[in-house]
Order: sequence, then structure tokens, then C-alpha cells
Amino acid sequence: MTSSFGNLFRVHTFGESHGGGVGVIVDGCPPQIPLDVAEIQSELDRRRPGQSILTTPRQEADQVEILSGVFEGRTLGTPVGMLVRNKDARPSAYASFRDVYRPSHADYTYDAKFGIRNWQGGGRASARETIGRVAAGAIARKVLTLYGVGPTIAFVSQVHDIEAKCDPLLVTREQVEATPTRCADSEAAAAMIERIDAARRAGNSVGGVVTCVAHEVPAGLGEPVFDKLEADLAKALMSLPASKGFEIGSGFEGTRMFGSEHNDPFHIVDGRIRTRTNRSGGVQGGISNGEPILLRIAFKPTATIRIEQDTVDVQGHETTLSASGRHDPCVLPRAVPMVEAMVNLVLVDHLLRQRALAPPS
Amino acid sequence: MTSSFGNLFRVHTFGESHGGGVGVIVDGCPPQIPLDVAEIQSELDRRRPGQSILTTPRQEADQVEILSGVFEGRTLGTPVGMLVRNKDARPSAYASFRDVYRPSHADYTYDAKFGIRNWQGGGRASARETIGRVAAGAIARKVLTLYGVGPTIAFVSQVHDIEAKCDPLLVTREQVEATPTRCADSEAAAAMIERIDAARRAGNSVGGVVTCVAHEVPAGLGEPVFDKLEADLAKALMSLPASKGFEIGSGFEGTRMFGSEHNDPFHIVDGRIRTRTNRSGGVQGGISNGEPILLRIAFKPTATIRIEQDTVDVQGHETTLSASGRHDPCVLPRAVPMVEAMVNLVLVDHLLRQRALAPPS
Amino acid sequence: MTSSFGNLFRVHTFGESHGGGVGVIVDGCPPQIPLDVAEIQSELDRRRPGQSILTTPRQEADQVEILSGVFEGRTLGTPVGMLVRNKDARPSAYASFRDVYRPSHADYTYDAKFGIRNWQGGGRASARETIGRVAAGAIARKVLTLYGVGPTIAFVSQVHDIEAKCDPLLVTREQVEATPTRCADSEAAAAMIERIDAARRAGNSVGGVVTCVAHEVPAGLGEPVFDKLEADLAKALMSLPASKGFEIGSGFEGTRMFGSEHNDPFHIVDGRIRTRTNRSGGVQGGISNGEPILLRIAFKPTATIRIEQDTVDVQGHETTLSASGRHDPCVLPRAVPMVEAMVNLVLVDHLLRQRALAPPS
Amino acid sequence: MTSSFGNLFRVHTFGESHGGGVGVIVDGCPPQIPLDVAEIQSELDRRRPGQSILTTPRQEADQVEILSGVFEGRTLGTPVGMLVRNKDARPSAYASFRDVYRPSHADYTYDAKFGIRNWQGGGRASARETIGRVAAGAIARKVLTLYGVGPTIAFVSQVHDIEAKCDPLLVTREQVEATPTRCADSEAAAAMIERIDAARRAGNSVGGVVTCVAHEVPAGLGEPVFDKLEADLAKALMSLPASKGFEIGSGFEGTRMFGSEHNDPFHIVDGRIRTRTNRSGGVQGGISNGEPILLRIAFKPTATIRIEQDTVDVQGHETTLSASGRHDPCVLPRAVPMVEAMVNLVLVDHLLRQRALAPPS
Repeated sequence: MTSSFGNLFRVHTFGESHGGGVGVIVDGCPPQIPLDVAEIQSELDRRRPGQSILTTPRQEADQVEILSGVFEGRTLGTPVGMLVRNKDARPSAYASFRDVYRPSHADYTYDAKFGIRNWQGGGRASARETIGRVAAGAIARKVLTLYGVGPTIAFVSQVHDIEAKCDPLLVTREQVEATPTRCADSEAAAAMIERIDAARRAGNSVGGVVTCVAHEVPAGLGEPVFDKLEADLAKALMSLPASKGFEIGSGFEGTRMFGSEHNDPFHIVDGRIRTRTNRSGGVQGGISNGEPILLRIAFKPTATIRIEQDTVDVQGHETTLSASGRHDPCVLPRAVPMVEAMVNLVLVDHLLRQRALAPPS
Repeated sequence: MTSSFGNLFRVHTFGESHGGGVGVIVDGCPPQIPLDVAEIQSELDRRRPGQSILTTPRQEADQVEILSGVFEGRTLGTPVGMLVRNKDARPSAYASFRDVYRPSHADYTYDAKFGIRNWQGGGRASARETIGRVAAGAIARKVLTLYGVGPTIAFVSQVHDIEAKCDPLLVTREQVEATPTRCADSEAAAAMIERIDAARRAGNSVGGVVTCVAHEVPAGLGEPVFDKLEADLAKALMSLPASKGFEIGSGFEGTRMFGSEHNDPFHIVDGRIRTRTNRSGGVQGGISNGEPILLRIAFKPTATIRIEQDTVDVQGHETTLSASGRHDPCVLPRAVPMVEAMVNLVLVDHLLRQRALAPPS
Repeated sequence: MTSSFGNLFRVHTFGESHGGGVGVIVDGCPPQIPLDVAEIQSELDRRRPGQSILTTPRQEADQVEILSGVFEGRTLGTPVGMLVRNKDARPSAYASFRDVYRPSHADYTYDAKFGIRNWQGGGRASARETIGRVAAGAIARKVLTLYGVGPTIAFVSQVHDIEAKCDPLLVTREQVEATPTRCADSEAAAAMIERIDAARRAGNSVGGVVTCVAHEVPAGLGEPVFDKLEADLAKALMSLPASKGFEIGSGFEGTRMFGSEHNDPFHIVDGRIRTRTNRSGGVQGGISNGEPILLRIAFKPTATIRIEQDTVDVQGHETTLSASGRHDPCVLPRAVPMVEAMVNLVLVDHLLRQRALAPPS
Repeated sequence: MTSSFGNLFRVHTFGESHGGGVGVIVDGCPPQIPLDVAEIQSELDRRRPGQSILTTPRQEADQVEILSGVFEGRTLGTPVGMLVRNKDARPSAYASFRDVYRPSHADYTYDAKFGIRNWQGGGRASARETIGRVAAGAIARKVLTLYGVGPTIAFVSQVHDIEAKCDPLLVTREQVEATPTRCADSEAAAAMIERIDAARRAGNSVGGVVTCVAHEVPAGLGEPVFDKLEADLAKALMSLPASKGFEIGSGFEGTRMFGSEHNDPFHIVDGRIRTRTNRSGGVQGGISNGEPILLRIAFKPTATIRIEQDTVDVQGHETTLSASGRHDPCVLPRAVPMVEAMVNLVLVDHLLRQRALAPPS
């Protein structure tokens, strides 16, 4: 119940959106993993705002520094500390949030919980906190690849009511990065850009859905009861800012099927046990079955908008709020690397556990 | 990554569906909590199969014994051990599952993970494992009530494509218990009964959705980053057998709204800060805001059906399987107390943490 | 901060000395480990009181039942639940402790902490709680042996001011079990028996020291910082009832040496790096170096004696107490299997972690 | 099994002696605690080498920066990140350690465990790692004081065979800081200085004992079984570099007493239950009893000496090593703030837990 995630591959994040900086400690990374700061930086660049007109214009260089745990290009097996300095601090831009609670933002709940709040930005509720997650996820990815786990590929599959039409299993990283929306369906991507830009001009915001596939995950990851693979994935993804829903495999749609339609028949392919369909989403009984893991995550429209809203101030008086200046009309494109990072963190943690507790050979 | 759940109010379950018994240790329950075994038994009775024709005919008395941690009707502050003996062991009923993997069940993944499996039933994947959860949840409920947290009320809101029409916030425990489907809308309940019974007669199964409301949760529960209240709830509920999806507040539907529609405006009611709408589902920035917490959980149709299915055997040959004997056509009604238990376990854990880390007064 | 121990090989104990029973869940045991209930029972028999006149005459059959996690003689990889029923409940024997605090016992501190106490015996402070530890330790031993880690052998090296004269590295299990004192030096053992019996007759008690050697521990177990192997061993052993001190290797005596005397020179033996001396006690920088691990644990004289003592009652009045009936004049012989169990639990936990996080090969 | 310590008040350290820096995240500090960077710096200054001729001449400015978690002089309730840059990096001074293992140092065990090692200094085994602990301990102390827990005062009670003669309960911080040895007995302090300086000139090193008293600890802290207060203290202190032994209260000496001599009689003082003696060291049954907590920790002589020693190189050849340049002849004076920090971290963690799980009032 902390700013920590994972059991063997442990991640501890710190930092507010304003103050000295944000960062992460990755504790429990195996030793001798080749690691270059540029590999981490490139993931942070994907997460960074200001990549296109679609996202918040906040300019964050987000240069990461590795403080420890790496020596001559390989991990030491000791904690990898990483730091990104805060640069773009403009407290004045947030002055109005000191006294007035933004609707559906964390301002009020932070005050209710802590009785104190860094009003100069979103504090820990800022999307900026995810820098540490993405940096840690990049290391997780290195380990996964070294141990033979395939790529994790997420993309924006829905913005507002515009849905992408593409087979998630066939989406490539190149397709995802080809558009600023990170939607693999180029036709839908164009419509999404229009919708997001319209929201931006109106001072409004839109939400959507990110779909994610983890390829080539070995059978046997996940625990039978509380730490089912899908349970840990759900926690990981529901811990991302603005997420409101999670599905694996058939999800809510599958509730409308009969068992005889929903069950995934086993068959043999190249001598290996596979399923004909994948309504299970790659997990059965909490444990991976070797099929691709298929997830969907719902993100609500960004809370901070420029349109005037009814709200209250910290003294408990009703008032209105029109956020001035910049706003982020759609978090979806930037959520893609966040989703991938969280999935990779879950996978690597279960992979290491399985190495520890695998049947003796 | 274990059979444990929670940080301060910790729950450890054990037991396969066949063998000596199933049970739970509740560690971290405050001392001096009045506790009667009958209160735990009554929750177990709600979870028990064989309550109506709608559920599995397996006869389980499920009498719970408190082994420790309670003295003269009050908790000692030490671990509360609870045990339910297995009675209805009929290995022969499961003999066909020793060599053939049930589609979409955990048979195959257990073998892939552990290289060994108790084929005399579902092992840890059996719904029987949830006995420990429900028993622990009953204790959590006692603590919550003592500390002023209101009731948690779940109900079956959808079976197959039949949806209940009722306001979740107004549903009462009495309404829920009035029908064997645990659906508060009596008209929908009748249709659900028919649908479940048809599936049963056909040797098939159906899934559905459980909706849950946690009433009178104080503002301030939940942590800003990984242990957001919704993240812990998602993990808790996605760890239930057969769950495939989770939503809080507006969930997936909310992704189709503009921010200006989705945000919950604050206003003042009786001197207290409230929201006009509750699309946030009672949580903002991972922390409860004092509004009711509103959840939906998708359950797939039960995997074990009597209809013949394609599958493989443990030697890797393709074959077919027709499960003989009893089967559970719909897990939804029994899932209701499981959902409530998991929600209560999450709430009590965060409540205790907030007592530890609340601002000094 | 619970009744749990370990990270990967996790142990959860429950039970008071009076009530339904005491037991343990072992969660995180690898699958397919051969396990017979008789192997666990034989360790419990070593721990059991009433084995000789030297120990408490309390008659406890302590028959263990495996409730889960074992199937056809092998572990399933799921939680192993074990239960020992309480049989010898005689609340009347403890009636005087309801109102009067035994000096140096846990009666007062339990009341201070919990505001409630099971006065019918020692509650969780009873040596009876260690049943769960010893049962879990027996499973840990099975895993360690399977993975090539040598035996852990503890013995009583001091009772009151009588010290054994024998080389701890050469002590065998047979020597230890040859006398009721579990002292490998037969001459000292005879003197110890006399001393303990004299204390018993006088209604008094004596303490002493247990020495323990873990043989054939591979180099590389233990973590650099907080979870140093010696730190986890210290915690494990200082968690045993009545322990007051812990040493590894040279311990307190080593503080009187110069660095040039204390350092263990490396040399090569049979192509392997060894140390000439072992003042480090098998651990350097928190990590095992492949030499035997050498520990000493101080146990105070048992608190419950029959001699009249000054004390206070629960109402806060000064009074005196003469415990009637049985008492245990010396816990040392029974502490031997407890010490071995705790050491084995620490070793297996670090061994599994090292399997998870070893350098990729 | 990580670089983390504590359950509610959690501390995560990172950093090698060489590389970007060392630091710590403190997660779980209550909000609104007044905190000034100067308070942390002053504790770091006590820990810093180069304070006198007695310690290593390594010049480390050790200026701490608070990166997060503090706003306008008060804690936010979010993780407090702290960083100290490494300044004095001189890899050449360590070049000889790249290929040759220092006896009784962690060089060999790190290679055995990780297969890689930052040979430019001690890596995580360096005393420099304790910077994070001392910084975190300073925050723990702030919380403890705010919640009414008295000071924790440690001092050097033995160097080599020179023992201080003073009552630990009466030692003040001023006395401790009055001499560079941090020994409260000025006569013994003078002899210690001479001994340490002689060792330094000879290129040798000496060990000793630190005694620590935690004053005004409320009754009720600590858990009955594995997380006994003395067990957590033992782990905390045995995790400090070079520690080889731990005692609480009567320790090893108490093993030579009869129960009738050792038990601490209760009596009433000013209406409060106290003990006449304190052989328990302030803890009974794992739980504090309101008396001062009294500890002793043994530190071996520093491993790195300038005298020539037999050893082996990384290729497995026997050789000799004479460490050139600076060495630290005695770690004891600097260990004093480390010991206090670790004790404070244990106390605050148990204090917060007791707030969470105290009996309902």
C-alpha cells in the first residue's frame, strides 16, 4: 500500500510534478543485463507530452539519469536508481487550483486524505509520475527479451466513439508509431486526430480505449488464487491515471455467450498444445496458457478542461472554475507506453517467480 | 505472489477442493472485535452451492470452525484460523479429468506450471477456495461496521443477455436475497431463472455481471499511485474465479463522453462536499471521495459443461470430452457474497492503513 | 509485521496454546517435493515437551495433520496447511494468571497491546506456537536437501554456566540426540542434566546457549543491504521465545581482535576458493561464502517458576505470585529443533530467491 | 529480500560508493510532519567520514537534496526522495581490488552471487550505503518525537578491549558528541583514541561494541511471533556493515542466571506498572513494556587494512594483498548514528502499526 509495485522485480517511484524531480528505483533486476541509458530514454520520449498537437504542449525534456546499479553497461543486481529533473515549473499556472478543486481531479481527495497538497501541479496524481513506471518498464522489457518473452504491443483502439478496425494480434510497433494517435488503423487514426483536435479547440477532452497484446508469453506464469496473472494485470493497469475499466480476453462481451461458445477448444499445433480461439485472453485459472495475452483498458476523458465547471473551493463554498492555459485533450496516445510498461512489469515479476518456484528438474 | 491478500488486514487461504479441508488465516484483525461463529457461517451459507436448482447440486455442509484468535466472543488481535472440512469427496466423479484437459479450465495451466495437479476436482481453481475469502470477508465486515463504514451490497445485474433494471444505489440486501438469482429486479430475476435452467438442462452454462455498491465509505481511503483504491479493487475482483472484466463508475461507457459531460461537479450538501453525479464511482485520483463506490464485474460462463467439446489429453493427443454428472450452469448468484467479501477486504485494509498514516491531529 | 515469515517460501502460523489448535500454512513450496507426514511428525516429536524429566511434563501428543497442498506424496506447489489439535487444555491450571502478571512473561505486554488476553496458557507467547515453525522447517529441510544444501545441526552448548567442549563443525545429529540435553559433549551433558534437575526441584529455571552450524551452504545466498543473510538469521532466531542474544562467527569475542587477526585469509582448496579461518561465520557482506554458517543464540532462563515472586495484578496492585503445578526448568533441549527450523526457513527462502535472480547463464 | 526496510514506514535505499550517487526513498511517512533539510544534514554530518583522525580520511561533503515529498516545510504523505551525490570518486585507488579479493570483505561474495561487481569501491557493501539509512532515520526521529517517543541514544561502549564504564541509561547526546570516539566515559574515550590511532599507524584496524538505549517507548510496540520488537531490532542492526552480534537486555550474560534472579519483578511507580530491574531490556514476549530498550551490537574490526594478507585473485590463484592509501581503522564512532537510525526506523514502523491496529476505543 505504497509507491511500490512488484514482488521480485520491485519498482519504487517518487516525485511530484513540481519539486526536484521524479524517479524510480528498480530493485530485483537480475545482474549482467545489458542496459544503455538511451534505451530508457527512447521509451520516455514516447511517453513525453508535446509530441504533437494532440497532447499537452507542456515542454518536458525528461532527460533520465541512471544514478546506480549499472556498471560498464550491465546491471549489477543492485538497485537501479533513475532520476528525471523537473524543468518546466510554473507554479503561477496552477495558482487557481490552490483554492478551488478541479472536478473529477485528485485535488479534493488529496486534501481529504493528507490535509496537505502540493497545489503546484497534480502532485503524485500528475501523469508525470508515470515517468518512473516507463523507465522501469524499459528495464523489464530488456529482461523479458533476454529470457525469451515476446514483445508487448499496445495501441489506441478507440477515441471517443471512433473505433479502430484491426486485428490486435497483427498490430506492429511500426504501425503504432506511424501516427500521433498511436492507432494502428490509419483510417480511424485520421478521424481520431480530428476528434481530439476539435476537443482541444473547444477546451474539452475525450477518452477512449487502449488495447494491448503480450506476445510469446510462456505457459505457467501467474498464481492460482489472489495473484492470478489477470488480477495483477488489472491492478497494474487500473493504477494508471484516468483508467476506469479493464478486460481480459472476451471481457464484458463474453458474458453474453454460452459456455459452449465461450470455451476455447484445445488442439495440437506443431506438437504443442494450443487453443483454437482465445476468449480466455491467454490466461486460464490465473495462469498463462501460452496464447497471446489480450487486454483492453478504458480511460476516461481528461479531467482538466478549459470549459467553465461548477465546483467548490477549499473553504467549502460553491464556485466555478475555468482552467486557463494549456490542457491535454486526450491522454490516450501517451497512455500506450504506460500500458506497455505496466504489462511488462507484471510479466517480468511473474517470470522471475516462476524461475524460483518451478518444479525441480 | 502467493495465497495471501492484504497488507495490514492480511488473509491467507489454503486448501484444495479435495483433501482435508479449506480454510483461512486472518492476520491483522484489531483486537476486541465481537465475533460469533454464526455470523461467519451465515455468509458461508450464502456462498454454498446447492441452495437452489440454479446452482451446482454438490452438497457441501461447509461448517466452519474457528481454530484460534477468538476468546470469549472477541478477537484477540492474533491470527484467526478458520477451517471447513471437505465432505463431499468423490474422486470417481473427476476421474475423466485426470487424463483430459477441460477447455477453458485450469487443468492444463496447472500442469504447465507445477508439473503436478490434484485432478480430484478443481484443486485451488475450484470455487471452493473462496470459502476462506468469504469467511475472512465476514470478519472484515464486522470491523468496517464498528468503524462506521456502511454496507457493501452486490447483486446480479445481468445473466447472459438479460439485464436488471434497477438503481444500484437503492438495492437492499433484502431485495437481493429475495430470489435465488440474487437479482434485485424481480422481473429480470424471473427471466434469469428461466435462462439458467434452460442452460442447465442443455448441459450448457451462462455468464453475466455482478454490480456492487459500497455505501458510506469515508473520503481518504486509497493511495495515490500503485495502490489506488480502484486498482486494489480490480485486483481483488479479477482474482475471483471466472471474472473477465472490471469497471468502476462510468467504466467503458464513460470513454464515449466528453470531459465536460463526464466530470462530476462538486457542490455542498448539508455542509459537506459532494458530487452532483458519480461517474467517478466514488474514487478520484485513487482515493475515495465519500460518494458510493460503484463497481461492475464480468463473469464468463462456467467452463465445465456437459456438452461434448474438442480438447486434448495429457499425452498431447486430440480427443473430446463430455463432462458427466453435475455441473454448475451459472456461478453468478454465488458470486455475490464473494464479490462483497473481496470488496470488504480491500476496504478494511485501506481503512486500517489510513488509521496508521492519517495526519497527526 | 504479522504472523508470517519469509518472502518466497512463506510461513503463516496461527493458534494459541489453548483453543482449537495450532498450525501453519507453508506457501511457496516448490511442487513435486516428496513429503511424508511422518517426516514432519518426527521433527515435532523432537520439539515436544515431556520427552524427559528435563522438560515440562505437559503431555502433548502433537499429532500433525496435513490439510492441503500434498497429493499422492508430493507437494502440489499450493499452500501446505498443517494442523495440530490442542488436547491438554486445563484452564484451571492457569487461573491464577488471569489476574496476576507473571514477571518477565508476556501477560502484561499482551494486555498493554491488545487490551485482551487468552489467560488460559501463554497464548501466542507459548512455546506451543513453535509447532508451526518446526513443521514448516521440516518441509524447508526437504527442499534444501533436494537442492544440495547440507544439514543444519544445532546443539546445546551451554546451560547455566556449564559449557560444552566440542568443535561445533564436527557435531553430528546422532551425538545431539544421544542425550536428553541435546549437548554433544557427553561430560558436559551429564553436568547439565544435574543442573537442570536441581533447578527443577527448586522450582527455579536456567538458561543457556544453542550453537548451530549450517553445512554445505552454497556461496551467493543473502542480499547486500537490509536482507543480509546474518540479518535474516538474527531476526529468525531472535523471534524464538526467550532468546536474548545472537552471534555469527566471531561474534562479541571478535570485537577484541585486530583486523589482521580477524580477517579470514582466502586460499585455494581442490580448485575452490575457501577461507583458512572462519571468523566470518560463513557470511561476508551479507552473502554466504561457501564456508559453514556458525551461529550462537542466548536463551534466558524460563520466566515461569514456582518460587514466589513480587509482581502486580491486572488492577495495578502489588502482590506476589507462586506458580503452582508444572513448570519447564530449561527450554534449551527443545530449542534445538526450533533453531534448526528457523535457520532452514531462512536458507530456503534465500535459496529460492537466488534461483529467481541468479545471473542469466 | 531487497534494498527495502519496514512495512508502513518504508525505506528504499540505492547507490554504490561510486557512480552517480546514493540515496533513499522514505515511503509511508505521515503527512504534515515539519521537516527541514538541515535536520537531515546534521545527522549525515555525524555519519560522515573524515571528522577526526580516527576515521577514514575520505572527504565526502555528503550534501543531501530532498527531491520530493516535502512542500513548504512539511511532509506531503508521499514518498520523500533524497539524494547525495558521489564526489570523491577515484577509481585508481581501488584498481588493485578489481583482480584481488580483500579478505573478509564482500568482493568475493558479490562475484559469487552476481557474477559482476563494481570494483571501484565497496559498491553496496560500502559504509556509504548507510547515508540513505541515516537520512531516513532522521525523518523517523521527527515522527517519533511528534508522537511522544523519547530519544534514542547510542554510544561506543567498547573499542578493542577497552570498555567504557558508565550507566547506559544516563548517557546524554552531549556526552556522546563530546569526544571523537563517541564514548560517554571520557577516561575510556582517551584510551580508545590512543588504541585506534595506534591501529591506524600500524595499518591495522580494531572493532568494538555500540550500546544503545531507546527512551520513553510506550508499552505495546512489537508483535507476538515473528515480528517481535527484538527480532526486528536484531535484523535492523545485524544489517549494518561489520556487525557480528546483537544482545537485548541481559543478552549472553543473562544465560548464566537462575530464573529467580533474571525475572524482572513488577511494581507500581506513580500509579504505573514498572519493573524493578530491566534484564528484559524493555521487551517481554516481543512487545515493549514501557521500560527503556537496551541493546548492544558487536562490530568486527574493519576488513580493509594496509598490512599484507594472504588471499586469492579473481582467476583463483593464491596471492597477497597490501591495500594502499587510506583505510578506516575503526568504524565504531561512525556506527553510532547508524545504530540510532536503524533503531528509530524499527520504532516508528511499529508505532504506526500500533496506531492502525490498536484496540478500538
